[in-house]
Parts: sequence; C-alpha cells; structure tokens
Amino acid sequence: MAVETPNHTQTVGGWAAYDSSGKIAPYIFKRRENGVNDVTIKVLYCGICHTDLHHVKNDWGITMYPVVPGHEITGVITKVGSNVKNFKVGDRVGVGCLAASCLECEFCKSSQENYCDQIQFTYNGIFWDGSITYGGYSKMLVADHRYVVRVPDNLPMDAAAPLLCAGITVFSPMKDSQLLESPGKMVGIVGLGGLGHVAVKMAKAFGHHVTVISTSPSKEKEARQRLGADGFIVSTNAEQMQRGKRTLDVILDTVSAKHSLGPILELLKVNGTLVVVGAPDRPMDLPSFPLIFGKRAVKGSMTGGMKETQEMMDVCGKHNITCDVELIEPDQINEALDRLARNDVRYRFVIDIAGRSKL
Amino acid sequence: MAVETPNHTQTVGGWAAYDSSGKIAPYIFKRRENGVNDVTIKVLYCGICHTDLHHVKNDWGITMYPVVPGHEITGVITKVGSNVKNFKVGDRVGVGCLAASCLECEFCKSSQENYCDQIQFTYNGIFWDGSITYGGYSKMLVADHRYVVRVPDNLPMDAAAPLLCAGITVFSPMKDSQLLESPGKMVGIVGLGGLGHVAVKMAKAFGHHVTVISTSPSKEKEARQRLGADGFIVSTNAEQMQRGKRTLDVILDTVSAKHSLGPILELLKVNGTLVVVGAPDRPMDLPSFPLIFGKRAVKGSMTGGMKETQEMMDVCGKHNITCDVELIEPDQINEALDRLARNDVRYRFVIDIAGRSKL
Repeated sequence: MAVETPNHTQTVGGWAAYDSSGKIAPYIFKRRENGVNDVTIKVLYCGICHTDLHHVKNDWGITMYPVVPGHEITGVITKVGSNVKNFKVGDRVGVGCLAASCLECEFCKSSQENYCDQIQFTYNGIFWDGSITYGGYSKMLVADHRYVVRVPDNLPMDAAAPLLCAGITVFSPMKDSQLLESPGKMVGIVGLGGLGHVAVKMAKAFGHHVTVISTSPSKEKEARQRLGADGFIVSTNAEQMQRGKRTLDVILDTVSAKHSLGPILELLKVNGTLVVVGAPDRPMDLPSFPLIFGKRAVKGSMTGGMKETQEMMDVCGKHNITCDVELIEPDQINEALDRLARNDVRYRFVIDIAGRSKL
Repeated sequence: MAVETPNHTQTVGGWAAYDSSGKIAPYIFKRRENGVNDVTIKVLYCGICHTDLHHVKNDWGITMYPVVPGHEITGVITKVGSNVKNFKVGDRVGVGCLAASCLECEFCKSSQENYCDQIQFTYNGIFWDGSITYGGYSKMLVADHRYVVRVPDNLPMDAAAPLLCAGITVFSPMKDSQLLESPGKMVGIVGLGGLGHVAVKMAKAFGHHVTVISTSPSKEKEARQRLGADGFIVSTNAEQMQRGKRTLDVILDTVSAKHSLGPILELLKVNGTLVVVGAPDRPMDLPSFPLIFGKRAVKGSMTGGMKETQEMMDVCGKHNITCDVELIEPDQINEALDRLARNDVRYRFVIDIAGRSKL
C-alpha cells in the first residue's frame, strides 16, 4: 500500500502494476500538495521506457507495489510554488528520471545530480518527505522545479516525451565524448530501439559518420533511408564484423539484453570508447584481449544532469529532433508492454494520458 | 620445428617447452646474424612472466612449439649493426615484449608501437624475415635496436629485468591516467603479485595514497610495512569492501584469473577508472549497474611503447625502483613455473641465465 504522509491530499488517477505479474490497472492515489519549490503538471504524454518493464515485473527485486511507472513525461504547468521563479502556469515542460537528490554534494552542485548518491527517481523512489514516488502513468504530477525542464515550442509534446529518458541517456555520453563539438567522427550505435534511433538522429545532426550495429538485417533499410545512418553492420554476420574492425571512434551500446562486449569492442579503433547505456540485468561478458590489445575503454553513463537535460531539449529543438513514437491510449498499456518485451515497437510507445481532456 | 631462414646461422643455447605439457628442457636453435639495425645481446637475466605460463601450456591456442619464452630480458651488448648509433658494445640494456612492428602506422610513428596491428612479440611471434621469434630463456639475443632500452646504472640487472614487462605494464596506464604529474590521488592496486607489487612501489613514488585490494589477508603486513601501502582491503570481506565504496580515483587490476569487476568498480568514485592489465583467458563479468550508476570506466592497457618504456626505466632509476625477485638457475625453471601457477612467488622469478659465465 502507498505510504501516506500528512500533506498528501491530492487525489490522482493513474495506472499501476500491483504485483510481479506486471499487469497494469487503474489506480487512484494521493500526491502531495504543491509545495513552495514545486510545480504541478497536467500530464499530457508519457513514454514507455524499457525500465518500466523491469520495474513492473520486479526484475531487479526493488519494486515497491503498487508502482506507477513513467519517467518520460510532458505536460503543462497548472500551479507554481512561491519559490519558483523560472516557470509559470501554462509552460510546456518535461520531467525525466529524477525526482530528488541531496542538492549539497559535489555532483548536485555541478548539476550532475544523476550521480548524487542520494538520488531518488520519479517512480519507485522515496521522496524527501518519506513518500513513495509515482511516475507519469498518471493524470497529474507534482515535481520539484529543480527537476523540470522546458520543452521547446517547435517540438510536439508526444514525440518529445521520450527525450526525457531515451534522449538524455544517449545525449549525455555523446556530450561527454565531445561529439557535440567535434564533427566527422566514426560513431557506432548498437541496437536500433527507443534509445538507438534517437542516438542515430543526434549523431547525424552533430555531423558524424554513423554506423548502426544490429542483430536485425531487416532494420538496415530504415536505418539508412529514414534515420540517415551511413553504415549498417549485422552483428551476427562474421564477415561484416570482420570488415568493421578498428573503424569506429565511439560506440553507444543501447542494448538492454545480456551480451558479450568482445565483438563490439573489436569494432573500435585503438583508444576507442564503448559507452554502455543499456542496463542488462545480468553481467555482460568482457573479454580482456580486445580491451587490452586496443587500449579501449568501456564506460557507463546513466541519464543526465538537469542542466544538460535542458541543453539536450534545446539542441533537439534546434535540430528538430524528436522520437518516432506509437501513440497509445491508457487502456493499451498492457499490450504495449507485451510488445515492448518482444522489441516490437518503432521506436517508442507514448501514452496519450490526457486523451480528450487535453488543454 | 623451428623455421630456418637463410641468414639464421648463429647457434644459441636456450630453454624451450616442446609441447602443451609445458615442461621446459634445453634447446639448441639458430638466431639470425646481427643485421644493420640489430644489436646482439649477451643475456644475463630473464624474468618469468605469467604470460610465459600461458604460452608453454598453449592456454590461448596460439603457441608454436618449441617455444623459448621470456620477455623480461636484461643483458649486455656484444655487437651493433652499422645503422645503430645509440648503443655500443658493453651497454647495459633491456628487451621487453616487442620484437617488431610496422614502423609506418600512426602508432609506430607516435611510439605507441605496442598498438600497431602488425606487432610481433619477442617470442612466439613472426619476425620480418618470416622466422619465429625466440625469447630470453636463452644465452644470446639478436634484437632490432628500436626495441631495446637502456638500464640505468644504479639498477641491478636481475631485479630490473621484470621491469621490461611487469614494470611497463603498470607504468603505462599510470602515465595515461596522469598519475605521474598529479600526486595525492587515491589509487587502488588489485592483486599483489609480479605486477601489483611494482605498481605499489611506483604509485607510492609518485606521491599517491595507495590501497592494495587482495584476496589474501596474509599479505597485508608486507603490503603496508615493506611496500609502503597506505590501505589494504580484503576483497572477500564484505564489510571492508562496503567501507571502501566510492573512495578510489584509479584502480589497476593486475589479476590474471577470471573474476567479476562489479565489486571492484564499486570502490571507485564517480568518474573513476579501472584499468585492466591482467589478461584472464575467459571473459570477466561486467555488471552494468556499478558501471552506469557511477559513470565509471573500464580500460585496457597492454605493455607500453618504446619511448615510454625507456621513460619508465629512467623513472625507476631515479626512484630506485626494482622488482622483488627470487633468483633461480635455468634448471629450476620447471619448478618455478609450477610455483608461479600456484601464485607461490614473492614477487617475480628471475632466471640467472649467464650464471658463472657472466661478464
């Protein structure tokens, strides 16, 4: 049962999983009153992230039921707290993975809140007041304004929603790898799903030669023609993998299923970097030879800080980058989760939360 | 049988493994005449590296028998080719892992010969003339002068020998991680063997706080009192590992047995780097969570280029750093390899090749 804290008085309609069956059903729950640092958001759209699937099924053993998933949220502000100066009622905003952090550590102070060791997530987290956080599969959200970003006017709210997780997750390591300011690099994207397809769009917008690495030969045409990829390697094709050896500067691995990093590492030049942004729940195989012989690096990266999340939204606005989405109604969430588990989505499900009651 | 090429006319006495039993026995073979770019070296000492053990037993399936191991070689020059200007007869020199590289690629041109994709090793390699290379378990060596370094006068030739592989293997990633010029870092060394013990000495000489991470509580006293380590974590002690979380800037993992990188990654601060220099023959387990949540990096590093190998020798000369060795006679090699397989050595076996016939 939900933890109730004194000022959690606002009744909200949402959708939750009640147990590890992962089945989603309507859920009426309470949110806190809008505090001095909070904004209240009428949720318009919420993307379905692969992480949602792990949470509703309790794959990581950390789920607190009922869980209201969703951390790719766009909506419109309906209320602002007295300390909030940078947002006003009617603003188009987004909320991603972060709900709270300590605000005092070196990471919070340098807007790398995502690496604060007291970080709390938008759902299945524990907020400062001790309450469990509930995500964007709900009609309304109360969020601390420090974890809210603006959505550029030219971006549609539905296709922008997945930028809040998928987008920032691939943007942050690209920025970290100097891909924003150094065009002409050889960039590889492993996996052409929710994260991968937006990574291709960004890498192309930043002026790189982009190669998609995928197990699915059927995705080649779309990768090249619609997303603009320059190269395509079928990872199960030994000849193609051999030809691709030592060709890439940076690879983003977006695959969330367990896999060996060895063959992917071989595609990197000496000194190249493989950034892991998927989160396989079992350890990946890391053979030492391709790592050592090529002086290569495997790095991790998890979402982004709030400053760079806003930067990502602005960059996407500038380049008109959004996600390719399949819009669904709330009563289709279970079907969408089933299809997502089979990778049957191009490329992100987004729930039309407000439906006919949109502003 | 050894490949014989036309000018391989010099008869040399050495010690070789003849098959995957790994048993070492005397072996008489031919080396090339001293070419215009070569120096001939009377071998004085040769260290026994863990790699030798893998090769004599054909653990990696690449051994060409008979194999004469040894790539931690010190000796004295007895002949120089007409193109060799930087060495003369009588010079104290060392030869490490490299026998040849293409000399033309970007890596060779920037003295990162160790990452040239045509690199050939001091033993079990194929030299430019098509002959198989034989290592330092032999009385005499002919080496291209571009892969030879000087041994500083103040370093004893026996204890300096393992610097040519163990030493450069840990020095190179330390240099790469700016540990030579930025004292005061929190440095971890996993494994206190041939590589680990010299890594501790170097990291201390460069002014860092050094923590040894080991499975053997029995090594703590020695690590602290003799090698100067500041901290010691028993990796099987959950409480000690918990206390060590997020404390280290850089970790060098010198362990060559398969192991999980997860618990070690947890010891790193956010943005910390784990450098793998051991070469487990089976893939290591790399869990995604500690990688991603801490924005950490796992890097590989393999030996070093020739310029940095000379720098390493000079730095060791300056700080009087050598390896702790157990000196053995050639007829004790088999016993030494058996003990090495059980990690029963403190910290490096060195073969007294010249014995009573030393210069």
